[in-house]
This record gives sequence, C-alpha cells and structure tokens, in this order.
Amino acid sequence: MSLVSLVSMLSPIEPPDEDFAKRARARQRELTKPPGSLGKLESIAIRLAAIQRQDRPTSFGRRVVVFAANHGITEEGVSPYPSEVTAQMMKNFAEGGAAINALAREAQADVVVVDVGVERGTRNFAREPAMTEEEMHGAFERGREEARRARAEGVVLLGLGEMGIGNTTAASAVAAALTGLPPSLVTGAGTGLDEAGRRHKCEVIEKALGLHKLSPREPLEVLRSVGGLEIAALAGLSLEAASQRLAVVVDGFIASAAFAVAAKLDPGVKDYAFFSHLSTEPGHRALLAFLGVEPLLDLGLRLGEGTGAALAMPVLGAAVAAHNEIATFKGAGVSDKT
Amino acid sequence: MSLVSLVSMLSPIEPPDEDFAKRARARQRELTKPPGSLGKLESIAIRLAAIQRQDRPTSFGRRVVVFAANHGITEEGVSPYPSEVTAQMMKNFAEGGAAINALAREAQADVVVVDVGVERGTRNFAREPAMTEEEMHGAFERGREEARRARAEGVVLLGLGEMGIGNTTAASAVAAALTGLPPSLVTGAGTGLDEAGRRHKCEVIEKALGLHKLSPREPLEVLRSVGGLEIAALAGLSLEAASQRLAVVVDGFIASAAFAVAAKLDPGVKDYAFFSHLSTEPGHRALLAFLGVEPLLDLGLRLGEGTGAALAMPVLGAAVAAHNEIATFKGAGVSDKT
Repeated sequence: MSLVSLVSMLSPIEPPDEDFAKRARARQRELTKPPGSLGKLESIAIRLAAIQRQDRPTSFGRRVVVFAANHGITEEGVSPYPSEVTAQMMKNFAEGGAAINALAREAQADVVVVDVGVERGTRNFAREPAMTEEEMHGAFERGREEARRARAEGVVLLGLGEMGIGNTTAASAVAAALTGLPPSLVTGAGTGLDEAGRRHKCEVIEKALGLHKLSPREPLEVLRSVGGLEIAALAGLSLEAASQRLAVVVDGFIASAAFAVAAKLDPGVKDYAFFSHLSTEPGHRALLAFLGVEPLLDLGLRLGEGTGAALAMPVLGAAVAAHNEIATFKGAGVSDKT
Repeated sequence: MSLVSLVSMLSPIEPPDEDFAKRARARQRELTKPPGSLGKLESIAIRLAAIQRQDRPTSFGRRVVVFAANHGITEEGVSPYPSEVTAQMMKNFAEGGAAINALAREAQADVVVVDVGVERGTRNFAREPAMTEEEMHGAFERGREEARRARAEGVVLLGLGEMGIGNTTAASAVAAALTGLPPSLVTGAGTGLDEAGRRHKCEVIEKALGLHKLSPREPLEVLRSVGGLEIAALAGLSLEAASQRLAVVVDGFIASAAFAVAAKLDPGVKDYAFFSHLSTEPGHRALLAFLGVEPLLDLGLRLGEGTGAALAMPVLGAAVAAHNEIATFKGAGVSDKT
C-alpha cells in the first residue's frame, strides 16, 4: 500500500451545513440574553448545529479514544520515564485509575483504549524511519475504524487521546517538519525533563530531521518517518470522523500534531474540530497557530491521554444546553432591546 | 446602623488549613501522572482540600445565588434595555428559562434567586447616593444570610450571580472608585451599547464620581454611593461564605466588583474564592488585576447571572475528581520517573 493510495482511499469530507448554521444564528438572537453575550458558547452551538445537521444539536454521546503505542526514539534517552510505563498505563486505564478515567467520568464520557503498538512500537527515528508504509497504514486504518465505530455507537463528541512514552519527541519532530520552525521552538520538557534533557531531546530531533529530509508538502512521509503509531491512528480517526459528520475534540500537543497531518491531507477536517486547550508544551501554540485555530481552555495542562478533550466536553455541553434550553424573548415575555 | 458598626459585625475569616494543603500537595506527587502535568487542576484541588479541611475534597453541593435589583441610574439612559426587564427575568428564572438555568442544570448546580430590590431599587447615583446605610446594610445582611443557608444546606461551591438592568454602570463606578482608574478604562458596552452610548455612560459615571468624592479606603461608602443592592448582597455573601469556610465561585464583572469591596473589608476572603472567567467588559480585567488573581476561563462571556461561575464548576469538579480518583504509582504498579 503506497502513501499515494492511502490518500486516494480517504472518504470525502463535506462542509458543515450552512442552512443549519444560519437558523442556529437566528435562534441565538431570539434567546433571552443580550446578543453575543455568551461569547464562544454561541459559536460552538452554531457549529455543532451545522455539523450535526440538527436545529437542536446534542452533546451527549461523549467518548475519548486513547491510542497507545511505544516509541523507538526512547533509546536516545528523551524521556524521564521508561517505555514500560506505556504498558503499565494500559493496565491503569483498564482499571479506571488514570487521569483520563477520572476526567472522562466527570465529563460523562466513556473511554476506549486502543493498543496500536505497545509491544512493538516504532523504530528509532534518529536512525531510520519510524514506520514502514504498511505499519503506518495499519495504524491509520485502525483510527478510521474507531471513528466509524463511534459514529455507529451514537457518539457525537469524539475526544482524541494518546499514551506513549517518548511521544512528545515524535510530536515535536512532526511539528518542526510541518511548520518549518526550528526544533528548539517546538520542543519542551515533555513529562518533565530538566533543561539539559530538553536540549538533548532537541538535538536528537535536529539530527533526525537532517537524516530524513522531510517536506511539509508530504505530510504522510513526515508521519511515517518521525511520527508514531498512535499519531497515525489519531490522524486517521480525525479524517474519518469528519467524513462521518462527527465532531472531534482535539486534546493537546500530540493530538494536535496528528490533527495537523490530517489537516494537510484535507483542510476540511478543521470544520469538524474543536480545540480543547492550550498545552504548556511550546510546540502546541505553534501548531495551533499553524492550523489557524484557538483553544477553548488554558489551564496549564501537559498530560495528554485526552484529558484536555474531556475537560472541554462540559463546555461544549453548556453551549448546547444554552442554545436548546434558554427561553426566547417572545416565549418568556421579556422585553427586547429598546 | 453605621458603616463602622457593619464592619465590626463581620465574622472573622480563618485562613484555609495549611496542613491539609501540604498533604494534598504530597498526594498530587504520588498520582500516576507527571508531577505538575494537570496544571491549575492541581492547585484547585489543593486549595479546596485546605478550604474544606478534607483530604478528599468534594465539588458536589453546587449552587448559584442570583441576587436581583434595579438601579436608579437607568434614568440617565445607560442601558439599551428597560428596567422592567429585571422583573421579567425574575419570572424567566423561576420558569427555568434563563441562561443561568440552562448552564446550572448542565453543571449540576441549583439556582437560588433572591430579590433584593427589584420593585424598589437604588436611587439615581448621578444625583444622590444610591442607598442609605440601612438599605445597604439590609442587602449586605441578606447576602450573609444566603451564605449561612448554603452552608447549612450542604453547598460546597457557591456561585455569585446577579441580575439588574443598569448594573454594569454601578460596577464600573465601583471599579473606578476602588482602583483609581479613570472611568473610560473600566466602562464597557454592558448589554450592548454602541460607542456613543458607551461614551455617555462613561460621562454619567465621571459626573457621579465628581459628586460623591469617594476614597478607595472607604469601600462601604463606595458601595453605598454608587453600588447596587445586588452588589451589596454579593459582598456580604462572599465575606460570610469565607468565614463559614465555604468556597465561592466569582462570576464576571459585577460579581468581581462586589468581591473587590469584600476584599477591601477583609483580604482573607480571597483565599476562599475561585475566579471563574474573564468577561469582555474592560473593567473586569482591571478588577482581577487589582485583586491580583487569575480567571480560570476566557470564553468571551458578558452575560452575568452567574453563568461564568456555572461554567467553571465542572472544572473545579474535574480537579477534585482527578485528585480523589487517580491511582497512585505504588497502587497501580506504574514506574515513577527514573
């Protein structure tokens, strides 16, 4: 399966329905509140109406999919945690003890954890491409499959989660390759490197980018060479979700790197995405700027797992509740602006 | 009842318990996530543990109290909505059709609406003091009463809400008097004035401040002269909640103006407060800077009613859920940092 044929297999993405958006905007003006006074909640509800092709959108049917995989790049000493933690965290997810479990419960979202390469992760991309075309394609398709499954199971907000020791290094390499920014500007402390550790991580990425000679015009080659299996799965999931008219809630840095690959393949995917939060990883701001989008929350998170996506779901829920439940000026007998 | 005796009647505010904070910080380091990676969620949980004197804080028992009152200053044409809307909105609140009803339901919070002067509001503070000492004292005590009632009814997160056509004008006047900033910097469009309307509102405030000759060292005189009955009630509620060791969730501009009065009377009140969001009203940023605090959310809201407080409650809930429910490294068999 070549990279070109992978792209030709992508499902088409239709834009959200402008008629539903127009009716939703009209409804917002009739609700008993000053026009515009709910700020971003108003635009969220309008977009969800257009995405879902419904006059009264819904926010229930919430899921965070956590793709997990390991990274050969950890051989270079880029993370303070050992690779074993990825498998240990799989057990923690299954037992409901991880941060995403707690935050998803609070957000009334379910969590689906998908192993896309915990036992056998990527190769060390400081020495060779992280994946073969077949490996990348398999993970990408696994992501698409989860989008279809979510749609079939009534999910309406699909959060992008991931777990993989070493994956901020892969995400930084992807971010640098796609944005053209130097690695030093998009490489952070990850799970907690000190400054010397961060500099080393940065050098590893610089060396790898020198080796692979990537072009932002070939996003799948970027993904294959320096990405990760969970990143490939998230890119596939994002694209298929959009083609299924399913809203996705992008988490932090790693999810945004995956989403940036998806957006390079089909910019229409952005119409179906909500960006949950701004991570403290420096590359995240760069990726959001590259995508031309704004995050909803800024709470200093840098955990991944889809935790930011879970936190944003109640905000989307509030937007929907306001849109659907606030009385109209006429209905409530409230005087409109003089 | 003189202003001096009102202050002498305030209940003492004890600081949150540092031992509980210390134990909560220790617990955060043991949870299966990189230390610090949940950002503000960690500090929220630590503060709530210290406020509630509990190793496992709770976020359930959520309430938004909406104090409603009218404003004589509306005679000066400072709002695009007629004063009748305050009473009409009382009916809307009772019927569950206002924005705060929708957002509080979504946040699993109840809503208590308290009329502190809808029929008979304040006097026109462009001509005379808005309230007598007795009127202000009555509203302030009504606020304190609601804090005690909330505590007795098991509330643990108490949101500050308000409704009152004209009350951004009162809040701007209070903000200018307390911060010393010129009215032009703390006066916005309110419910939707155009630029000429905003300039007129600003002139009304400038004229009133010239008339009353207020000093930031006399916050109750500021409140009495240019504040509002709902603002007085919110100040009383904030102080009493803190003395009852009950966390408050401050809403936007008007609630923050009330809270600033409270903080001038007893700065200890700030230890019990979470600042939910940044309003687009320009005076709000100035008040938060004056208080030296940071808001949790920035979603472009400018509605009041406690809507920002309701939106922030699930964030506090997520912080508590993470603190209480995430497994420890030891408990989950996950390797800690190498």
